[in-house]
Amino acid sequence: MEVTARAPGKIILSGEHAVVHGSTAVAASINLYTNVTVSIPTAGNDDSLKLQLKDMALEFSWPIGRIKEALSNLGPPSSSTPTSCSIESIKSISALVEEKNIPEAKIALASGVSAFLWLYTSIQGFKPATVAVTSELPLGSGLGSSAAFCVALSAALLALSDSVNVDKQHQGWKMFGESDLELLNKWAFEGEKIIHGKPSGIDNTVSTYGNMIKFTSGNLTRIKSNMPIKMLVTNTKVGRNTKALIAGVSERTLRHPNAMSVVFNAVDSISNEVASIILSPAPDDVSITEKEQKLEELMEMNQGLLQCMGVSHASIETVLRTTLKYKLASKLTGAGGGGCVLTLLPTLLSGTVVDKVITELETCGFQCLISGIGGNGVEICIGGSS
Amino acid sequence: MEVTARAPGKIILSGEHAVVHGSTAVAASINLYTNVTVSIPTAGNDDSLKLQLKDMALEFSWPIGRIKEALSNLGPPSSSTPTSCSIESIKSISALVEEKNIPEAKIALASGVSAFLWLYTSIQGFKPATVAVTSELPLGSGLGSSAAFCVALSAALLALSDSVNVDKQHQGWKMFGESDLELLNKWAFEGEKIIHGKPSGIDNTVSTYGNMIKFTSGNLTRIKSNMPIKMLVTNTKVGRNTKALIAGVSERTLRHPNAMSVVFNAVDSISNEVASIILSPAPDDVSITEKEQKLEELMEMNQGLLQCMGVSHASIETVLRTTLKYKLASKLTGAGGGGCVLTLLPTLLSGTVVDKVITELETCGFQCLISGIGGNGVEICIGGSS
Repeated sequence: MEVTARAPGKIILSGEHAVVHGSTAVAASINLYTNVTVSIPTAGNDDSLKLQLKDMALEFSWPIGRIKEALSNLGPPSSSTPTSCSIESIKSISALVEEKNIPEAKIALASGVSAFLWLYTSIQGFKPATVAVTSELPLGSGLGSSAAFCVALSAALLALSDSVNVDKQHQGWKMFGESDLELLNKWAFEGEKIIHGKPSGIDNTVSTYGNMIKFTSGNLTRIKSNMPIKMLVTNTKVGRNTKALIAGVSERTLRHPNAMSVVFNAVDSISNEVASIILSPAPDDVSITEKEQKLEELMEMNQGLLQCMGVSHASIETVLRTTLKYKLASKLTGAGGGGCVLTLLPTLLSGTVVDKVITELETCGFQCLISGIGGNGVEICIGGSS
Repeated sequence: MEVTARAPGKIILSGEHAVVHGSTAVAASINLYTNVTVSIPTAGNDDSLKLQLKDMALEFSWPIGRIKEALSNLGPPSSSTPTSCSIESIKSISALVEEKNIPEAKIALASGVSAFLWLYTSIQGFKPATVAVTSELPLGSGLGSSAAFCVALSAALLALSDSVNVDKQHQGWKMFGESDLELLNKWAFEGEKIIHGKPSGIDNTVSTYGNMIKFTSGNLTRIKSNMPIKMLVTNTKVGRNTKALIAGVSERTLRHPNAMSVVFNAVDSISNEVASIILSPAPDDVSITEKEQKLEELMEMNQGLLQCMGVSHASIETVLRTTLKYKLASKLTGAGGGGCVLTLLPTLLSGTVVDKVITELETCGFQCLISGIGGNGVEICIGGSS
């Protein structure tokens, strides 16, 4: 028995940082995915739980007996009731992870492996399986790779349980029903809590439902895009400290309360305008071009406001300068201070220009990904991916 | 008889563009000067009016008879009553300028030469003289070179008239009294009108009075700086179309009225904060450093907002990136789209760092000027500059 789930990453189209101070933000799914395949051994010839991180050529394996022993305090799995990992359980899980001697350079993985163990044992219990993970999402670059992992993992595990309805007749990728999405989104959020401490819930929600989400002060509203949007996502590969960047904006806000509060208001206006452009119907090519031009201008404005908040970075500026040469608008996405930069690729832009921009950005040492945005959320394929 | 006047250029410390939309801006004088020397021939051996633009190795000369003929409709000079150049007079003056066949590449000079002829004949009448001009200010780069020329010229001409009181006893640079400054500022404004059509009056006022000026919706308030501020002024040498840049901001404001109006509010807050930092007493080095850090942060914020308005330029970004490497804060000054960039040079910054930054910027083809800001306005020296 084999099940594969894939869940998309996300970008922040508008409003990062300002959202912490009450402004509206808009996030969207990108068609870059994390795939999780759960294989249940047919016979009892293997009594272990294996996690294979294919992109890193890493495999972690635990005898089921060892897991049972460490997590003896857990009750039977209750896949239909998402539960938070208790402090006691997280300690037991950490012990299981520590045994694996994760290489120093990959230490950030440890919390992901902990989330895996929690979700697996909570939904599947103490059963042997091999869980293989591959991803098109660069890790830790603000594209929601950890949420996509938690969503895909929860989806695959739930598909094997009795808690969701999956059409097992037809081949190919299938979407979940609304109530199943709600359940797996909750489970994914529990995984995200183990990885991030206090996640906003935006990443897993976008990865689960796909499309776009507008959020203000903790309220999430799903919005359905009425236009195809293609973005160049440039990963500067510059690591950043998200907490320090958020703290920096807060400190600046304390020093300059008047100016910063109006800056956040400006971002709020921009996010609302972005959402309304995306929502409005676009009957023909001309109006798509007009909408794209408006989005480009709003991206440029948002980037200026992010610079005003002090979260840009030399590497981001390099991407901006390079894309500007080709008259393309860009903005950082996520925390800033490095990470990823979005560049809108208008519908009528020639492929030659796109190739040139990418060549130039890659020469700077950046990684370029082209992605449609606002696509489907998590999907499942029974019997392995097609 | 020889009189030399020198008048400083200006920078916009904060609030360019937003000031057009009702926000506060702060301008300051820089200690880079335009010098105008008026020499009256002792005997009647030369009956012409000569304008020598020393930096450009240009000289224009008109027989006094030719000027009299062209401007026969003018009454006697009335140096104490600044008057605007009528449409009829500007036509006659243009004819005098056209006779000089100003080289195509220097065509922008024509309006400056017209302003010269208007101010000269209005204040001095039809008398022979040689007027020599030198300047430390790059032309047309937003540092107020035309206003400095009009102010220095008006000062020198008025010093030769009976309309102002000048101490002719003592050698060296001397300042004018308050009412004389008011008179020469008005004359300079008449010259600026010939050059710019509808000048704001800020450039000539800063050049006349020196120090700093805060202005909102046409109201100018002189403010006295309580801290020494040194700026690196980098001239990108990229020419720009100020009117088109201003129009671009207005068009963006029409497209995104909500976002842009709060952006202008943010600039207003920043300008007021800049003014209050400059005005507040700074008793010791520590608090000067603190004030400098605040100014740096406000400059960075203002630059972000200018980028949000869409008036930055690749050359400006290059300066920003270069100075950021040395942890120095910069912002464009004036219209943007090229022109000049300000970089604050903190009091405790080592000269080695300054040298390095300048070398790097000059390698990019930029011109670097170090300038104290908020110094004296126009000054005069009887008997030639010392």
